[in-house]
Amino acid sequence: MPLPGRNLMAGPMTETATIEKPAQHSSATSLIDIVFPGDTNHHGTLFGGTGLALMDRVAFIAATRFGRAPFVTASCERIDFRQPARIGHIVEFTARPVKAGRRSLTVEVEMAAETIVGRQRHTCTRGIFNMVAIPEGANAALYALPELISAEAPKTSDAVGMVEIVFPNQANSVRRMFGGEAIAYMTKAAFVAASRYSGKLVVLASSERIDFSRAIEIGEIVEAEVRVERVGCSSMSIETKLWSEHLLTGERHITATGHFTMVAVDKDHRPVSVRDSALADVVPFEQGRS
Amino acid sequence: MPLPGRNLMAGPMTETATIEKPAQHSSATSLIDIVFPGDTNHHGTLFGGTGLALMDRVAFIAATRFGRAPFVTASCERIDFRQPARIGHIVEFTARPVKAGRRSLTVEVEMAAETIVGRQRHTCTRGIFNMVAIPEGANAALYALPELISAEAPKTSDAVGMVEIVFPNQANSVRRMFGGEAIAYMTKAAFVAASRYSGKLVVLASSERIDFSRAIEIGEIVEAEVRVERVGCSSMSIETKLWSEHLLTGERHITATGHFTMVAVDKDHRPVSVRDSALADVVPFEQGRS
Amino acid sequence: MPLPGRNLMAGPMTETATIEKPAQHSSATSLIDIVFPGDTNHHGTLFGGTGLALMDRVAFIAATRFGRAPFVTASCERIDFRQPARIGHIVEFTARPVKAGRRSLTVEVEMAAETIVGRQRHTCTRGIFNMVAIPEGANAALYALPELISAEAPKTSDAVGMVEIVFPNQANSVRRMFGGEAIAYMTKAAFVAASRYSGKLVVLASSERIDFSRAIEIGEIVEAEVRVERVGCSSMSIETKLWSEHLLTGERHITATGHFTMVAVDKDHRPVSVRDSALADVVPFEQGRS
Repeated sequence: MPLPGRNLMAGPMTETATIEKPAQHSSATSLIDIVFPGDTNHHGTLFGGTGLALMDRVAFIAATRFGRAPFVTASCERIDFRQPARIGHIVEFTARPVKAGRRSLTVEVEMAAETIVGRQRHTCTRGIFNMVAIPEGANAALYALPELISAEAPKTSDAVGMVEIVFPNQANSVRRMFGGEAIAYMTKAAFVAASRYSGKLVVLASSERIDFSRAIEIGEIVEAEVRVERVGCSSMSIETKLWSEHLLTGERHITATGHFTMVAVDKDHRPVSVRDSALADVVPFEQGRS
Repeated sequence: MPLPGRNLMAGPMTETATIEKPAQHSSATSLIDIVFPGDTNHHGTLFGGTGLALMDRVAFIAATRFGRAPFVTASCERIDFRQPARIGHIVEFTARPVKAGRRSLTVEVEMAAETIVGRQRHTCTRGIFNMVAIPEGANAALYALPELISAEAPKTSDAVGMVEIVFPNQANSVRRMFGGEAIAYMTKAAFVAASRYSGKLVVLASSERIDFSRAIEIGEIVEAEVRVERVGCSSMSIETKLWSEHLLTGERHITATGHFTMVAVDKDHRPVSVRDSALADVVPFEQGRS
Repeated sequence: MPLPGRNLMAGPMTETATIEKPAQHSSATSLIDIVFPGDTNHHGTLFGGTGLALMDRVAFIAATRFGRAPFVTASCERIDFRQPARIGHIVEFTARPVKAGRRSLTVEVEMAAETIVGRQRHTCTRGIFNMVAIPEGANAALYALPELISAEAPKTSDAVGMVEIVFPNQANSVRRMFGGEAIAYMTKAAFVAASRYSGKLVVLASSERIDFSRAIEIGEIVEAEVRVERVGCSSMSIETKLWSEHLLTGERHITATGHFTMVAVDKDHRPVSVRDSALADVVPFEQGRS
């Protein structure tokens, strides 16, 4: 949040400063959430400020992945809210670095909402966040962001990848993420994948055995990589791999792999078929995003 | 969040539409919070996005108080973050309507942080939020905002007034605020008042009997009005009146009155004198705000 | 969460290691919460992932109480969800150690939901969590869990005991729990006790004077011990003792005692009699649990 100097965005960048690190492609980072009644105002729409908070958070994650240094938000440009997100919508915040200076990075963030039933997707808003690296340690003075290579078209993929940062509230007294919080995050990712696949409301029917191979520290990035494994009449088996990623080194590990059975249900929580609406029979979701 | 038409901010306003309601002075609304370890990144500073969320929330409350209609955020202007707020800081978000159209209202929001020890206050950021009224019901088509009379200098007062909206996660199953949440909010206000008065870290020593005279619904505004009643060697007695305010009618009631004994302590939680640093002996806090 | 070695669950345990500490009975630990709108999906049922997170948390508390060392979740076995918990339900997560190795502890967790009106209770799910102690300090190498003596039948009691861990967002800048958060927790326990006793929706009418005798640190266990003291026509007086318990030493203190008057109300918040449905006249709640 602090602005450590003036004119951060202005002036030519010294090219010599950027050769320390290999140039990087601009790739997108997605944070996905579900609008719960607790996040909304009395009209059932997500508070604008809640959206802003999550836009900033994904900009922070994208900047950190690009620069591998501590970042702060220096400013955000004017943001127009076009359409609201409502209770039960899946909201996806996608961030992509678009301009890199020596220590300043401009990140474009899109907030989109999807209905589960009918799979309609609309853009809620877009914003520009100006992030500044504040490197620490012995070589901080020499630090410079890598060069930004402009983005190719985003790759289409069956997998859903969603990121988050581990907060102190999710951690135990020795600053490791609670196992249950990790499972809750994996389950949310499975919910998103099954909802998108089926276009139906889904509920968790069972969770297979989950083994944790390592601890996740406060402040690390977690990424859930989700895949629909098998589809029954009303049930779907979803595999969720939970990656942890060190903010500054970028080192990644698979911490746990889960298999969740999600069941499509109607308003009264009775199982319904997913066959009629499953993605196998329709235009793949990723291609239909506009 | 939706923007129901273009050029909301531009163009002349139909003056005839604004005579239905009496003109209103621009008065300030303050939302006060304390930076908890759980709100911060691993540098111990408040996440920028958390600040943005609270700026939007106080803009929403100020707009609702001005227009007495449901409001959504249409846009927020560019926001620069000058200085961070840190763990243990008191943060104050102050919103003030600055321009009113027929249904659009421009609200200026300041975010400031104060250290408790030493009572230093700095502005973290300022922002402009453009809010739009979306009236409902039979007379919605005729609705127009009242005329805005420009602000006089803010009145200085010993009392701390802090507002909040009641959220679903503070409520019981029939959508009324939990009594325990109401007490927690009153206690937070007492903490702010005693911290500002003493310039010391304070802890709650006791809470006197509290009677609740009525229920508060989800979506109502609550306002804590706080006053230092008596000062001992290391203790302060703080009176907190909890008002509830209907969003659309503006009807206000005192729901409960509490008396809290707060004790100034050092880092090891041992009582210390408040005499040396109490506000009675120093320049009143409000005048020192810059 | 880390698995510090292979075959943790398998193989014979070194009996010699377990004699350092006295054998312990397997006693149950309960975490009780109320399903708020903010915890649910848009059909009004608790999110599966939220349930899993709370199951893990109570397993962590039960393991810590048994072994008095930092614990992490190594794995959780397959979990089937039988019935959902809905808005307004009281949910109770009960954990009980069932098998102890040298450093690994198997904890069985049940999640049950109760309706307030009618006092119907159903099991939502059961799970097995495998926790591993990761002792720290000079004698860490010698650490071993105590021997587990198999459980006698759980004792029936009028008192409700509910546990929780103090989280960073409940704490001030020197990492002590805010007084207001402590009162909110005590009030929630009083709400649970009065709801169970009366089988009616209850609201807080008043809170008597509360004195705080000591501070509670982040990461400590808090336990609310609740008792129905007196019953009027529509009101109940509930005593709540708030215990704090050090995670590693097990040292316990009463931090505060509160007396809350809860009133049974109908849907329109009008007082109703508790006489017709009070537990004194019916089969004791504890016996009717299954």
